[in-house]
Amino acid sequence: MSTKERILDAALALFNELGERKVTTNHIAAHLQISPGNLYYHFKNKQAIIFALFERYEARVLGILQVPANRTLQPMDKLNYLQAIFRGLWDYRFMHRDMEHLLLEDPQLHARYRQFFRTCQLRVQAIFRGLGEAGIIRVSEEDVVALALNTWIVVTSWFSFLRCNLLRHDSDSISPAQLQAGIYQVFTLERPYLTEQYREVMNELQATFMPRPDFLTPGAEDEAAAV
Amino acid sequence: MSTKERILDAALALFNELGERKVTTNHIAAHLQISPGNLYYHFKNKQAIIFALFERYEARVLGILQVPANRTLQPMDKLNYLQAIFRGLWDYRFMHRDMEHLLLEDPQLHARYRQFFRTCQLRVQAIFRGLGEAGIIRVSEEDVVALALNTWIVVTSWFSFLRCNLLRHDSDSISPAQLQAGIYQVFTLERPYLTEQYREVMNELQATFMPRPDFLTPGAEDEAAAV
Repeated sequence: MSTKERILDAALALFNELGERKVTTNHIAAHLQISPGNLYYHFKNKQAIIFALFERYEARVLGILQVPANRTLQPMDKLNYLQAIFRGLWDYRFMHRDMEHLLLEDPQLHARYRQFFRTCQLRVQAIFRGLGEAGIIRVSEEDVVALALNTWIVVTSWFSFLRCNLLRHDSDSISPAQLQAGIYQVFTLERPYLTEQYREVMNELQATFMPRPDFLTPGAEDEAAAV
Repeated sequence: MSTKERILDAALALFNELGERKVTTNHIAAHLQISPGNLYYHFKNKQAIIFALFERYEARVLGILQVPANRTLQPMDKLNYLQAIFRGLWDYRFMHRDMEHLLLEDPQLHARYRQFFRTCQLRVQAIFRGLGEAGIIRVSEEDVVALALNTWIVVTSWFSFLRCNLLRHDSDSISPAQLQAGIYQVFTLERPYLTEQYREVMNELQATFMPRPDFLTPGAEDEAAAV
């Protein structure tokens, strides 16, 4: 692996573990046992590393969000999209943790991200249209636009939602079950649009991700009762 | 107005305008032309001010999210809930701008917020059940839980969504049209559940909030084309 790639991998691991604000280029160099000068040879500052990590993330997401050219969509496709997207979210979790801050610090990244958002919306709209053409859902063009935007918001907010609303203050770890609950939650957006023909098979797929009934009240027994 | 109330009003205005991280208790005291000692007499630190502002916000939201005891829900009720909630979001916009940070800094606020989230979920679920009982939507209990959570996520993420994805880097101002688009977006969550009887009247209500077609691509012409 090239030094450049090793720097990006190390930065990603440290950002995810400690939060981007707490990691300096010196930390990254020390972690790799290379000199700061060597790191600066490849990246002029931390922003350049973040930008390169975003480019990786973007390529990964746009690689996932494609409608197959030679066949219609199947029920399993939706599941595969969601699982791949949530794996990407997890692997680059530092990014959505502090997105406003990252974008505020770097106008170039902000412009690129806004463009990425638009491209994603078009791709996700195409997927919903494809599900419509396959007879899996029944949607108007207005529904397609609304579904794509709601999907974006739920997906990109999921980890922040968990941290603010469900995780206890002393716990920073998101469980696999909480990740899977995000997949279920995105599924619920299209559930009312399922056609009679596919309702049963899609609901069975969704059900495997459905969280336990106490999902929204973890550890509630330890805390004060009602407000 | 009491000094305590004046401090809270000034802090809220400054937090909203400058961001909470950039405002100190000294700024707030200077803004009110009172001594820091006088401020500390009422609030022992900035966290105490933030906590008191959260209590105000919480009381306001819980005052809104009530199902009328003596009548069934009407189509206009849904609109009134959403408009009141979005006004509250706007008036306390500093809070959702940096919620993870605020909660991380104050375990007591975090516990209180998690409790608030649960109470809101129960209240919003009750509203969706009420809309079901009024014959406006047709929903299962599973739908009610999913709708309440999706509503929470879209509402609490809306400003952050606008700032990350739609606002240009040099613009910090959210337009009334962008605020209204949030109301439309929340409406779309329940749209597929509308009964035949109420579909037309509800869609007419929604339509007044529908954003322009270029809503998702503001200023797109100024930027690089496709990715």
